[in-house]
Amino acid sequence: MNPVAGTTWQTSADGARLTVNGRAYPRPGRPVVVVCIDGSEDAYHERAIADGLMPFTEGMLARGGDLRGACTMPSFTNPNNLSIATGVPPAVHGICGNYFYDTEAGEEVMMNAPELLRAPTLFAAFSQTGARVAVITAKDKLRRLLGSGLAEGGICFSAEKADQVTLAENGIEKVLESTGFELPSVYSAELSELVMAAGCEVLERDRPDLMYLSLTDYIQHKHAPGSPVANRFYAMLDRWFERIDALGAVLVVTADHGMNAKSDADGEARVVFLSDWFDAETGAGASRVILPITDPYTVHHGALGSYATVHLPGGADREALRAKLAGVGGVDIVLTREEACERFELPGDRIGDLVVIAERNTVLGTTAARHDISGFEEPLRSHGGLTEQRVPVLVNRPVELPAGHRLRNFDAYWIGCHAAAGEPLPA
Amino acid sequence: MNPVAGTTWQTSADGARLTVNGRAYPRPGRPVVVVCIDGSEDAYHERAIADGLMPFTEGMLARGGDLRGACTMPSFTNPNNLSIATGVPPAVHGICGNYFYDTEAGEEVMMNAPELLRAPTLFAAFSQTGARVAVITAKDKLRRLLGSGLAEGGICFSAEKADQVTLAENGIEKVLESTGFELPSVYSAELSELVMAAGCEVLERDRPDLMYLSLTDYIQHKHAPGSPVANRFYAMLDRWFERIDALGAVLVVTADHGMNAKSDADGEARVVFLSDWFDAETGAGASRVILPITDPYTVHHGALGSYATVHLPGGADREALRAKLAGVGGVDIVLTREEACERFELPGDRIGDLVVIAERNTVLGTTAARHDISGFEEPLRSHGGLTEQRVPVLVNRPVELPAGHRLRNFDAYWIGCHAAAGEPLPA
Repeated sequence: MNPVAGTTWQTSADGARLTVNGRAYPRPGRPVVVVCIDGSEDAYHERAIADGLMPFTEGMLARGGDLRGACTMPSFTNPNNLSIATGVPPAVHGICGNYFYDTEAGEEVMMNAPELLRAPTLFAAFSQTGARVAVITAKDKLRRLLGSGLAEGGICFSAEKADQVTLAENGIEKVLESTGFELPSVYSAELSELVMAAGCEVLERDRPDLMYLSLTDYIQHKHAPGSPVANRFYAMLDRWFERIDALGAVLVVTADHGMNAKSDADGEARVVFLSDWFDAETGAGASRVILPITDPYTVHHGALGSYATVHLPGGADREALRAKLAGVGGVDIVLTREEACERFELPGDRIGDLVVIAERNTVLGTTAARHDISGFEEPLRSHGGLTEQRVPVLVNRPVELPAGHRLRNFDAYWIGCHAAAGEPLPA
Repeated sequence: MNPVAGTTWQTSADGARLTVNGRAYPRPGRPVVVVCIDGSEDAYHERAIADGLMPFTEGMLARGGDLRGACTMPSFTNPNNLSIATGVPPAVHGICGNYFYDTEAGEEVMMNAPELLRAPTLFAAFSQTGARVAVITAKDKLRRLLGSGLAEGGICFSAEKADQVTLAENGIEKVLESTGFELPSVYSAELSELVMAAGCEVLERDRPDLMYLSLTDYIQHKHAPGSPVANRFYAMLDRWFERIDALGAVLVVTADHGMNAKSDADGEARVVFLSDWFDAETGAGASRVILPITDPYTVHHGALGSYATVHLPGGADREALRAKLAGVGGVDIVLTREEACERFELPGDRIGDLVVIAERNTVLGTTAARHDISGFEEPLRSHGGLTEQRVPVLVNRPVELPAGHRLRNFDAYWIGCHAAAGEPLPA
């Protein structure tokens, strides 16, 4: 795939615009900064504002856009970051989890490799037509996907590997030196703060046309909205939002997904172990349960989310299994591949025969033995389901959505570029 | 030892004053907060101010006291924290290192136990006469010494064990909850920030008469003055100093010791291995070299400092050894026990026959095999010598020292209590 095939600047009477993946973006007259707060259920910023800890954001929402939108399903990190980066759902860009089962190769594959991406990112398209682009992620897992196709000179690095950045590879150097950070732990609030600090440095110095700052949900997996640690994290973000605004950028704050408690009143995790269930129904090991939340960083969620997809053995009675599983306690809905593709705009070749979604306070596992939740110090919080689909879309400019527009987090650059060009959003 | 024997409030015509260890302290009319920035060579705050990163402190020094004083020798953490806490040198309080050789017991002993303290702290004395006292340290090693003799209701805890504080043991609870911190690593800047944040919470809520906030030199051991990480650390401190000032307290900022690079131009540590030298001179294992910098936290300095004390075997020619060692490259001075006690006010029963001090850029070790410096990512920085004796004494009130007064860091509460009582310092 040529990541920018079909991407061109279209010049119209009202100025230059770029069409990427079928959507038109005006050339922004000032930097557009999208911050994706990983796992930012809207109660987080709402509680922090109510507690007086986000004074800048409070004022920004009074003057600008205080909206809620839907994230793409599954409500996981990779699909949504790539949707924000491409402006389109997983059916188009192909990244439908952190992880999938490649039925042709017969392998389970991490969805980190740029080869798996089926559409150009806005970063690739803009940078290849001369715009300046900077992408900074907390964890390194996203860096390769988000940096795919970026033209030379574009900036793309992760805070996790900020000690290893080079001009040749990342378009930037000496990130720790310029920000004054020591390399933070990958399991820390500081990893996100480094993204914000480095982003503000780059914004001030280089004034990129598009910037993307993608944080980690380490805090949200452990701490509920309004809790002291969560409030302190959002108070920290508020200071950086203020700085971005002061630097004259259009700021769009959104999230890749929400977050909910996944435990009972005693703090015990509520888990439906799907492999155990399918082993009993279709024979030991005959069905393959894929948990697309799985990634190399499992300390804070134990690979337990509220979405799973299941590959059934040949000859299995899919309809009967679907109906029976839908009746299991804690299961929200069970869809066939076709239904899931239509409803959630997913790529059918990268999901199983069934898609299973858990209720608000339940997660899906394989077998008890394969999920080590003994190390959790706090009750499990996670995401993946329909109950984590609502995310904030906060803008430091007024936003007038076209009538009937269903707002998605991946409208972030569409909103931002129009605001930065001083243009209304088209119907 | 009764830690407050002989401590009484003396009432004079100009108000109540308390005499502790022979020095008189007026009863403060507002909180006195002493911050001991561990390892704060004065170039740290000077560079951060020059770089515009400590705007509050810059203004405070213009209006208040911008002084330099001497720390006690050896320029290590425990002796100086206890001097600040007692107002007197190690000859009186007995703590002359982190570590010493008990010649009677024939054992090497960590100097963490309250039984080793020979004088009451100001915290014990003030709290036992009804004043409110709060002591917060970064590392737990100091907590027991500094909390010795504290009356019930006094607050004393370490950030290192902030997750374990109880009202019964520490006079406070839920420190992490109220500040919104997750427990920081003992090797982090955040450990010190938690001390500052918790201190400000306690100051606002309880308004203690005396407060002591003692940080860690983790940053200073790794990062030179003016370096980005050091500057960011001091910028963080500046915000907390501003808060303490805004809460109406008298603020005295000092340090337990300075800090210098201890390496050559290539970043290679410059070490004189004293055990090797003494083995050659007095026979293998006959002399015992004690490095009083040694503590349970050695990742950042490898137990290498610029001060050592040596116990010689019976019959050794002390004068000849002293003269010969003084000529070794990197050695600054060698003193006999008696000379060191007189010059540095040390307790003679807790040091060896010789005291050895290294030059500015050199440290003293035992044998090469016993110091693992392979893990150092940055060139070694350390302290212990005369070249780390000068420390800042910064006060948010004007200070007029009596004529001829030799300022010491352990004058901190003497200065602070007079300022808080609105009294001039007595001649």
